[in-house]
Amino acid sequence: MRVTVWNENAHETRGDADVLAHYPDGIHAAIAAGLTAHLPDAEIGTATLQEPEHGLPESVLADTDVLLWWGHIAHGEVADEVVERVYRHVQAGMGLLVLHSGHYSKIFQKLLGSTASLLWRNAAERELVWTIDHTHPITQGVPDPIVIPRQEMYGEPFDIPVPDELLFVSSFSGGEVFRSGVTYRRGLGRIFYFSPGDQEYPVYHQTEIQQVLANGVRWAAPTQPRRNQIAIHKPDQGWFGA
Amino acid sequence: MRVTVWNENAHETRGDADVLAHYPDGIHAAIAAGLTAHLPDAEIGTATLQEPEHGLPESVLADTDVLLWWGHIAHGEVADEVVERVYRHVQAGMGLLVLHSGHYSKIFQKLLGSTASLLWRNAAERELVWTIDHTHPITQGVPDPIVIPRQEMYGEPFDIPVPDELLFVSSFSGGEVFRSGVTYRRGLGRIFYFSPGDQEYPVYHQTEIQQVLANGVRWAAPTQPRRNQIAIHKPDQGWFGA
Amino acid sequence: MRVTVWNENAHETRGDADVLAHYPDGIHAAIAAGLTAHLPDAEIGTATLQEPEHGLPESVLADTDVLLWWGHIAHGEVADEVVERVYRHVQAGMGLLVLHSGHYSKIFQKLLGSTASLLWRNAAERELVWTIDHTHPITQGVPDPIVIPRQEMYGEPFDIPVPDELLFVSSFSGGEVFRSGVTYRRGLGRIFYFSPGDQEYPVYHQTEIQQVLANGVRWAAPTQPRRNQIAIHKPDQGWFGA
Amino acid sequence: MRVTVWNENAHETRGDADVLAHYPDGIHAAIAAGLTAHLPDAEIGTATLQEPEHGLPESVLADTDVLLWWGHIAHGEVADEVVERVYRHVQAGMGLLVLHSGHYSKIFQKLLGSTASLLWRNAAERELVWTIDHTHPITQGVPDPIVIPRQEMYGEPFDIPVPDELLFVSSFSGGEVFRSGVTYRRGLGRIFYFSPGDQEYPVYHQTEIQQVLANGVRWAAPTQPRRNQIAIHKPDQGWFGA
Repeated sequence: MRVTVWNENAHETRGDADVLAHYPDGIHAAIAAGLTAHLPDAEIGTATLQEPEHGLPESVLADTDVLLWWGHIAHGEVADEVVERVYRHVQAGMGLLVLHSGHYSKIFQKLLGSTASLLWRNAAERELVWTIDHTHPITQGVPDPIVIPRQEMYGEPFDIPVPDELLFVSSFSGGEVFRSGVTYRRGLGRIFYFSPGDQEYPVYHQTEIQQVLANGVRWAAPTQPRRNQIAIHKPDQGWFGA
Repeated sequence: MRVTVWNENAHETRGDADVLAHYPDGIHAAIAAGLTAHLPDAEIGTATLQEPEHGLPESVLADTDVLLWWGHIAHGEVADEVVERVYRHVQAGMGLLVLHSGHYSKIFQKLLGSTASLLWRNAAERELVWTIDHTHPITQGVPDPIVIPRQEMYGEPFDIPVPDELLFVSSFSGGEVFRSGVTYRRGLGRIFYFSPGDQEYPVYHQTEIQQVLANGVRWAAPTQPRRNQIAIHKPDQGWFGA
Repeated sequence: MRVTVWNENAHETRGDADVLAHYPDGIHAAIAAGLTAHLPDAEIGTATLQEPEHGLPESVLADTDVLLWWGHIAHGEVADEVVERVYRHVQAGMGLLVLHSGHYSKIFQKLLGSTASLLWRNAAERELVWTIDHTHPITQGVPDPIVIPRQEMYGEPFDIPVPDELLFVSSFSGGEVFRSGVTYRRGLGRIFYFSPGDQEYPVYHQTEIQQVLANGVRWAAPTQPRRNQIAIHKPDQGWFGA
Repeated sequence: MRVTVWNENAHETRGDADVLAHYPDGIHAAIAAGLTAHLPDAEIGTATLQEPEHGLPESVLADTDVLLWWGHIAHGEVADEVVERVYRHVQAGMGLLVLHSGHYSKIFQKLLGSTASLLWRNAAERELVWTIDHTHPITQGVPDPIVIPRQEMYGEPFDIPVPDELLFVSSFSGGEVFRSGVTYRRGLGRIFYFSPGDQEYPVYHQTEIQQVLANGVRWAAPTQPRRNQIAIHKPDQGWFGA
């Protein structure tokens, strides 16, 4: 399994001290390290906004089973051409994990067909991540709830389509709730959005969060060769007679 | 529209002072009064466990568009024959609202095919009832969130089938979350489960809660004549030729 | 209720004799006439590709409760700016009915986040439209199945997200099946896709088809004022204390 | 993985020549043989109505990862106590595949909370089983559609709850359609209903049908130890402070 962790890498390259304190090598490096710890057989690579084609040329995407997407303050700098390319690969079967503030990324909005707007407040609140679907592969092996001592609050209304599966719901000290883990299918691709994870708090260093991401990668990995469209037989082959 | 509010009426008939303080004429009377205020054109009746056939003979159910069900400490005293009768009417198109501790009623478990078990703690916590589906008729006209100052906590895991629609999610002071408003269809009947409402707190006197129940009744009311089975054409009429 | 029927009007303006035989005043006129017959209290207008801003300036959309969209051979000629405008109004609460070959329209693909590709074959086959959800307002009052004597075949795989609700499934003489009636919610807007209806067959003259469209319009009509985003309270109002 | 194939074995023990022609050792033996061919590492056992406790004592169920259920003319002879036991094991995590006329079994009706009634006609029609969800593990590796030359017709309306996942839809020569492959979750257990398969036609000898059943068994197998209830933490451990 080949995994690519994408990060806009903008807080880091702009020298944001708070972020670098938690993620000295970039958020992508921390996410990749967490995945490596839980998916020893996977090949984990990284890519960032600053690389040519944002590190996501056709050759990289064609070789990626599951892509993780982290973005926050630089969504507008992502080239539409790259968004289109990722979109095409998801439709053809590539798995996609969208993380935290990636809810506002071009690729997530394009795949959902909605704004993905939400409530938020940054006040170092405690987040409790409760499991809703106890039979799902993504929720296996993690405590219920996962306790995140200090977090940004993300709250409902979360303007997303009705999820295919609702896996996690979070509460925050301030009383808000949030559908923090949801899945969608688009074309032949599987998508998992997971909100815990922020640049100002060391959330990606928590082993339970790493476990959820690893579970998500395993779940989103394609089980069939990538193909350009879901329709595989030609109409003239589909004629079964009157 | 004809509505029947059913209550086990057990706390009340046993003289539970705390309950009678909030609901001197019984919880059913308070629910019925709230519905009357918000559904002036509906005919609202009540029925209780202590009446013959629990107040739900065939004639009453046949004349009921929507039944509301409140039970807590006397689930086991409900006759299987009456449960079977209610079940049959729901399948044939009668609407059903299951309230609060009614999650453990025989009729709810039978319609869901699951235990409906949940976490609970009675500690007079604040409940916030957040709207998840902002387009649904049941969530119209109520504040988001509804604030209930003192409530029993109901928390996940809530052992129910994946709902057809998830309308409300609550948080509690203790940090738990709960799918507090969910819908199901069974046969030709519509079912709405709404958890806010308890015998020890004056929840049913809150106008927002009454509004949700009134919306629920309107949503669950049948739009077609009751019929014994969903299949309406006979196989020999369904033969369209090879 | 104000309804706008949009048609690319391309077969008609190009003088396609087969199409004009069935729809001498344009497909939009036939659809509008059918709605008028079943929704006597609605105000039904039409708009076409050839008008300035395709007949859908801001003022028209702001006054439209439900928009119907018919397109086939001119999807590429629809201005992105108009698509964006329709998209914004759906998110804000306007209802949308997408008809037949409109599955490949820019607006449908944008709202779904998928290709909406499907199988097809034009061989004047019989289509049977079976009701799947017998409790839904859109399926009330129509025969089960609706029989369409001669139709273009639309078949699975239909590359759409899992629908919020599956209302109709069709079969065709050739043996294919198709999810011919599905609903989605996006933002505050309700979307109904209904496939029966073609330029070469007089499908929109069938009263059962008109009934489904009228039901769909009633179902998709907003129940609250249009607003730009689903989040209605400000985070600073949402702070309920630790 | 330990699999138990249950069969009422009634046509066979009554000496029905048509059935014995296709299934000389019983339908359960044919299903078990098909599973063995596609799941070489699984331990496949069988059980029948005629055995003590119908071959499903506590010890057998406790050792069964996935149970397959075939019944037709002897649903009423299945002891309620055994149904209750199977129900309890599904809630606790055992997988269940319900086959063909098993839709009317006590266990399926009890788990669904509905009648599971449907249309039917036995006229040796061709069934085409179309894949709807192309990303699901159960639909991998089978042709789309699967062609069954001669079959009993099962048609909508199929009175089941909205499925968690719709995997297959069939059409029949007579024009009917049917949701022939659907999944549900109940408690910690996964349920897959698959309609192709009949006592009068050699459906279970088709390798594609065997492949679907093998996929279903793999999908339904539990990924966690069986436990009596889904709630795993005690309320007093769940108190996170006000």
